[in-house]
Amino acid sequence: MGWKRGWRRKLTFLFMPCVSSCFSAAEEEQQAQSKKGLKKQQKEAEKAAKKAEKQAKVAAEQQSAEEDDFAKDRYGVSALVQSQQKLDRTLVRVQDLTPEKADQLIWLRARVHTSRAKGKQCFLVLRQQQFNVQALVAVGDRASKQMVKFAANITKESIVDVEAMVRKVEQKIESCTQQDVELHVEKIFVISQAEARLPLQLEDAVRPDGEGEEEGRATVNQDTRLDNRVIDLRTTTSQAVFRLQSGVCQLFRDTLTKKGFVEIQTPKIISVFRAEDSNTHRHLTEFVGLDIEMAFNYHYHEVIESITDTMVQIFKGLRDNFQTEIQTVNKQFPSEPFKFLEPTLRLEYTEGVAMLREAGVEMGDEDDLSTPNEKLLGRLVKEKYDTDFYVLDKYPLAVRPFYTMPDPHNPKYSNSYDMFMRGEEILSGAQRVHDAQLLTERAQHHQIDLEKIKSYIDSFRYGAPPHAGGGIGLERVCMLYLGLHNVRQTSMFPRDPKRLTP
Amino acid sequence: MGWKRGWRRKLTFLFMPCVSSCFSAAEEEQQAQSKKGLKKQQKEAEKAAKKAEKQAKVAAEQQSAEEDDFAKDRYGVSALVQSQQKLDRTLVRVQDLTPEKADQLIWLRARVHTSRAKGKQCFLVLRQQQFNVQALVAVGDRASKQMVKFAANITKESIVDVEAMVRKVEQKIESCTQQDVELHVEKIFVISQAEARLPLQLEDAVRPDGEGEEEGRATVNQDTRLDNRVIDLRTTTSQAVFRLQSGVCQLFRDTLTKKGFVEIQTPKIISVFRAEDSNTHRHLTEFVGLDIEMAFNYHYHEVIESITDTMVQIFKGLRDNFQTEIQTVNKQFPSEPFKFLEPTLRLEYTEGVAMLREAGVEMGDEDDLSTPNEKLLGRLVKEKYDTDFYVLDKYPLAVRPFYTMPDPHNPKYSNSYDMFMRGEEILSGAQRVHDAQLLTERAQHHQIDLEKIKSYIDSFRYGAPPHAGGGIGLERVCMLYLGLHNVRQTSMFPRDPKRLTP
Repeated sequence: MGWKRGWRRKLTFLFMPCVSSCFSAAEEEQQAQSKKGLKKQQKEAEKAAKKAEKQAKVAAEQQSAEEDDFAKDRYGVSALVQSQQKLDRTLVRVQDLTPEKADQLIWLRARVHTSRAKGKQCFLVLRQQQFNVQALVAVGDRASKQMVKFAANITKESIVDVEAMVRKVEQKIESCTQQDVELHVEKIFVISQAEARLPLQLEDAVRPDGEGEEEGRATVNQDTRLDNRVIDLRTTTSQAVFRLQSGVCQLFRDTLTKKGFVEIQTPKIISVFRAEDSNTHRHLTEFVGLDIEMAFNYHYHEVIESITDTMVQIFKGLRDNFQTEIQTVNKQFPSEPFKFLEPTLRLEYTEGVAMLREAGVEMGDEDDLSTPNEKLLGRLVKEKYDTDFYVLDKYPLAVRPFYTMPDPHNPKYSNSYDMFMRGEEILSGAQRVHDAQLLTERAQHHQIDLEKIKSYIDSFRYGAPPHAGGGIGLERVCMLYLGLHNVRQTSMFPRDPKRLTP
Repeated sequence: MGWKRGWRRKLTFLFMPCVSSCFSAAEEEQQAQSKKGLKKQQKEAEKAAKKAEKQAKVAAEQQSAEEDDFAKDRYGVSALVQSQQKLDRTLVRVQDLTPEKADQLIWLRARVHTSRAKGKQCFLVLRQQQFNVQALVAVGDRASKQMVKFAANITKESIVDVEAMVRKVEQKIESCTQQDVELHVEKIFVISQAEARLPLQLEDAVRPDGEGEEEGRATVNQDTRLDNRVIDLRTTTSQAVFRLQSGVCQLFRDTLTKKGFVEIQTPKIISVFRAEDSNTHRHLTEFVGLDIEMAFNYHYHEVIESITDTMVQIFKGLRDNFQTEIQTVNKQFPSEPFKFLEPTLRLEYTEGVAMLREAGVEMGDEDDLSTPNEKLLGRLVKEKYDTDFYVLDKYPLAVRPFYTMPDPHNPKYSNSYDMFMRGEEILSGAQRVHDAQLLTERAQHHQIDLEKIKSYIDSFRYGAPPHAGGGIGLERVCMLYLGLHNVRQTSMFPRDPKRLTP
């Protein structure tokens, strides 16, 4: 028991079956410092209390003044759901609201996505994750004038329980995912109330960049999104991104399990640590690494083939099972479909350098690739081979870490490789030196303090098999597969030098 | 490119198809300080160099003195496997060495588990993970005297490539997993040489505690194991433990995916941190948490049922698919089979306290359970209900964290629960307070600095659904399912206040 026991490596599963919400799974991880301060929070709490008082007063007045409201038991703000009772009530999911359900009276829990009062009617759009449906509260047999007014005043993003009759519509409702039916509301209760002023509007947050400018409409900048990630994660785009990310993890593991791999958990608390510049569009101070290490028999290309096949299985799985998500993201961020070859294209570093030189780039044989040159090479490879995924093999030894196995035929090169998606690196890997003596020599050559890597070198003293591997950046794979432009879009709560919360 | 980019949350897969080894997947994580120091390491390097020189000299002398060795091309130390060539050679797995392969000439890569010279013969046991087979090098047509001597001198744990004829044996070889065949070695090459002096012997490391004492044989203490984890992980017991752990992760995810959950990755770098005492048999400074959060409709028992069903699916999956692993661990650490009920037993806290009082324990209604009392209650529950898994529900509000939802009917209790395996807690969970105002009040009651949890509280201001969840300790689940007694046995590279390496 306790709310923080040491440092957790979490594998978290979230289930929000009814409501399009996504608060962080672990509360303790959201507890963070803020510059705006305690005072503001206390003020807000006071404000909220005053507001609640006022609401209660209004409600009381309303009740006493209009005792004749025949519908008064059909709407209201429910008591906080504190598990008071086990209600035997089936809640229908929005995605299941189809013409087959026509003329049925159903219960539903959903968020108020938008609301629009119009004379004696109030139109609501009710949302669950990526699905939404139109609902109508209209003065009549089942709803009073007061009930319509109550419905019209429910704040956006509040969660409501609704009892309603499902009705077929004659004209498709183009603005909703459920286009063939609407709900005629007979009861409506607020389950969880959102504050009236949202820090960002969901419709602004899914608007394509260009479109906003042209029509003079708002878009939401990245800092506002990330400061209010709990709301930003509710957009159809975010929902699609993180469902697809969950899919990448699943496809990665399923493929490797079938190949006979065993999943292991490695420590995150370590004594050696290297910081890199995380102030770029593709770096974070914390990222999820899908790592593979594999013993091979005679040649590290056995491992390259296993990894590229795993990537191909992921690409195919996404293409075949996540089309809805891909298209949802494309609506806001248009991109070309991701292309790949089978078997995967493998180029040698020298071939890559030759292609760049032919395109006018000046660089030495053993120079590392700059980020712009990586991207340029990606474009050249796409033109020539029509693929967004390829392996660049045999990097210069000088630009790789000390534990990289040198090329047996040319001491200037190494048995190492990067893998690229749309011209950006998503995996760096190599045959590792598995001999303690050679490893010591290589570390000394790199002027690494042997003291600090003693337990690493020692682990190779008692017979280690030849092996190779690599680390895949999960956020990058999702970003580049979807053709997005910032890795923060594919990290649920990104961390960089300027961001430690939420 | 680079060997450390920020802080990684790794999901690692290891594949050691041929050799029973398990070095840490990510080298950078093994790089750590040691007290023994640089000097010793340099000395060792010098020693190794001298040894290699001596070996080369001996080999040269041998060669010049015995040019008449007809088998001289049939054995030796291979050059470091540096991916010099793509050899078109199929390697057979030890587990596939059955009588069907009799009289076939095969190639095999394995570790030398034991070796025993006997006149003109040398018996080797060759091992791959949990499987092993007997191999014979005997002076004759295919092997010279010198070759037998060479084989006899190969250090234990070295990795060798062997060409051999598979032969059926008349009497079962009880000491090996492959009991019906042995290998008649025709060629043997050392691929990776182990240092002669192993810090621990594998046969000592799998000896049941009692047995060692009785027979005056060595067992290996925990610190020696963990200091030399790279060898300790090669034992049949360790191999079984971590294969089962991989199975727990897979069953957990598969079950939740089927239930409609989405996997998410939460940040590990956070600004609020609570340290607990990790100097116990069941605490680590770092552990793997399998976390679930789920929105529910009306009562948090909906969530308890989802979690307990997930646990039951894990228990069933282990029972049905991991019998070999369970029995392997049981050989060294005997335990009763793990028992569970369907549906899972749920007791209220007050019932638990009553059972303890009946057994003579003195405690107040709202006291927390001490570890000994948890264990005692586990035994009482096992006696009464015949289950090793149960839920204790409705803990006193005072002993739970501030974000726990109070019981609506009795303000001294709460909508919170722990789950126990063999009397030890493996999950702590609750309905969470999803209302910003109540959350603020509860935090103030606990005298928590609101400033520090601002972003957490703010995340509930825009409509949050009622929800509950819990965090499962992966290492504890494996430890307790297998009836082990220290969580360090089920953590690959455990971290505690005294251990940061390997």
